[in-house]
Amino acid sequence: MKITAVVMAGGKGERFWPESRENHPKQFLSLTGDGVTMIQKTVRRISPVVQNEDIFIVTNSAYKNLVREQLPEIPPENILSEPCGRNTAPCIAFAGAIIRKKYGNAVMLVLPSDHLIKYENIFTRTLCNAIVKATEGDNLLTIGITPTYAETGYGYINFSDEDGNAYKVEKFVEKPDLRTAKKYLASGKYLWNSGMFVWKVSAIMECFARFMPDIFYGTQKIADAYGTPDFETVLETEYNKFPSESIDFGIMEKAENIFTIPGSFGWDDVGSWLAIERINETDDNRNFIKGDVIAENCKRSTICGGKRLVAVVGMEDTVIVDTDDVLLVCSKNSTQDIKKIIAKLKENNRTEFI
Amino acid sequence: MKITAVVMAGGKGERFWPESRENHPKQFLSLTGDGVTMIQKTVRRISPVVQNEDIFIVTNSAYKNLVREQLPEIPPENILSEPCGRNTAPCIAFAGAIIRKKYGNAVMLVLPSDHLIKYENIFTRTLCNAIVKATEGDNLLTIGITPTYAETGYGYINFSDEDGNAYKVEKFVEKPDLRTAKKYLASGKYLWNSGMFVWKVSAIMECFARFMPDIFYGTQKIADAYGTPDFETVLETEYNKFPSESIDFGIMEKAENIFTIPGSFGWDDVGSWLAIERINETDDNRNFIKGDVIAENCKRSTICGGKRLVAVVGMEDTVIVDTDDVLLVCSKNSTQDIKKIIAKLKENNRTEFI
Repeated sequence: MKITAVVMAGGKGERFWPESRENHPKQFLSLTGDGVTMIQKTVRRISPVVQNEDIFIVTNSAYKNLVREQLPEIPPENILSEPCGRNTAPCIAFAGAIIRKKYGNAVMLVLPSDHLIKYENIFTRTLCNAIVKATEGDNLLTIGITPTYAETGYGYINFSDEDGNAYKVEKFVEKPDLRTAKKYLASGKYLWNSGMFVWKVSAIMECFARFMPDIFYGTQKIADAYGTPDFETVLETEYNKFPSESIDFGIMEKAENIFTIPGSFGWDDVGSWLAIERINETDDNRNFIKGDVIAENCKRSTICGGKRLVAVVGMEDTVIVDTDDVLLVCSKNSTQDIKKIIAKLKENNRTEFI
Repeated sequence: MKITAVVMAGGKGERFWPESRENHPKQFLSLTGDGVTMIQKTVRRISPVVQNEDIFIVTNSAYKNLVREQLPEIPPENILSEPCGRNTAPCIAFAGAIIRKKYGNAVMLVLPSDHLIKYENIFTRTLCNAIVKATEGDNLLTIGITPTYAETGYGYINFSDEDGNAYKVEKFVEKPDLRTAKKYLASGKYLWNSGMFVWKVSAIMECFARFMPDIFYGTQKIADAYGTPDFETVLETEYNKFPSESIDFGIMEKAENIFTIPGSFGWDDVGSWLAIERINETDDNRNFIKGDVIAENCKRSTICGGKRLVAVVGMEDTVIVDTDDVLLVCSKNSTQDIKKIIAKLKENNRTEFI
């Protein structure tokens, strides 16, 4: 049975605005200063386990060219374009149906395209264990992240007994409040939900047939049309009918045989500008500085220069991002409010900045 | 006796960098949003008292064209170009010698070109009183500003008895510490030293002859060459020999017959970016915002946009200045450190930004 991978790259991501834009979201950015984009890292990271011709990229049709440019090693027919975003469930079913059509059955890794992983060897070993467990039966594997602090911004996975090289999942839980997050952390029985999955195509498609039959039959039609002149029309028709639903809510919270493998491989979802100083080297004052910047007496600040000289004096805990047409200056406490700026721009129809 | 005015416009002023540059200093900027520059305001403000052909602008030769552009109403021959900056004493003696050559004797107002005055009628009345007192004898008049708080950044004038429409000056004192400044304020016997003076040309030139004879004789030679082909050469030779000295230290602290008239005309020396919110209208959160700016939850900040969109989120007490080639983000507590940035640029020979 082949090992295949599905990289989900349809996200729009407003949280790295103005560096990210609707037509150039986070997964296509390099936020690490090495010039390698998030999606390139994602693909390179799984190359010890999956060969390029078995890697499928599901993305919005608007990003098809970006994917081709950034991932010339992936066969163009493996780039699956969604006509519209419908969250992770339709995306995974779409890829699963195509893979099934191509290969019959296969092991299928599902990976977000915009996370970072520090210790790639540990990650690979975790994947291998998950692949084994998925192959042994109709098991759905979710890669859990061993929490290092009481984060309130992630969903959690509650696990119980060890079962071979994995743990039985009891339940998925939504983002907790701080007190609950602290309890989770102390219990040792909770992991962060990373959104990475491993299963056999047969196993997940069976779940779709059972829990989300509309999506199952729709993707079936799409797969039937794959390789024919009708493909684009069928894809668009069926996709537009799909509900927007996450795989967590649509399948994982309902299915049995859910297992998790805890991973401690330095995972980071790079969820906001605050992540930049975590994932990059900082100076003695804990500033991350990129570009033509003169910083005088600054602390714990992220300063991304653009084409001009950026002079920063006496600033603390500030994010400064200079692009050709937009400058952002944001207090670290307020990065969640960047979306309010984008909302205002939308309101005023200033789409050139979004 | 004619009433003449000397506007001193040779200052380089680093404190409004990056809006001000060495080749375009503060006096040539409009910092008030009405598009009228500081030097234009200075000249317009004295027009109730002095006619244009009797206004002399002393400036650095590098700024001669800027002065011509911004003040087309001033006869070009009244723009006196210093070959090099030598502080206020040589500047005043130079202008005094030229005025004496043209008019024999005259009343001479001396004014910085980069201050703001809110209540122009009160200012005019103050000038008129000073002109009367200066005309009555060989009196040197300094316009003092009634202090409104214990400022430690200005020099002070200590005055005693009333004498006609002015007060006798006891002494000039340097920038005090906060405790001393508070004592000055409470005493009611101290004024801020605004650097504005009124005297007869004969009176001030006599003081130069007595206290700064080198400058006196040098400017004499310059005035003798005025209107001849040798003028530029003589000017350059003599000016380079002058010591760099302020009129306060060189004359005012030594001469007798010094009087002051307290003024309460809303004077502001616009000494740093902090002045901007004082001299302009601010929004409900006490922000001053200019240009294409979206500010979300910002307080007490000065945001001067340039050609791009500036988005500012959750910032307090911050100065943001966006120009074509330089962006400045500066904590309000640190505006005095802007000069450190300029020093670093000089060190690295990046003169294009200075």
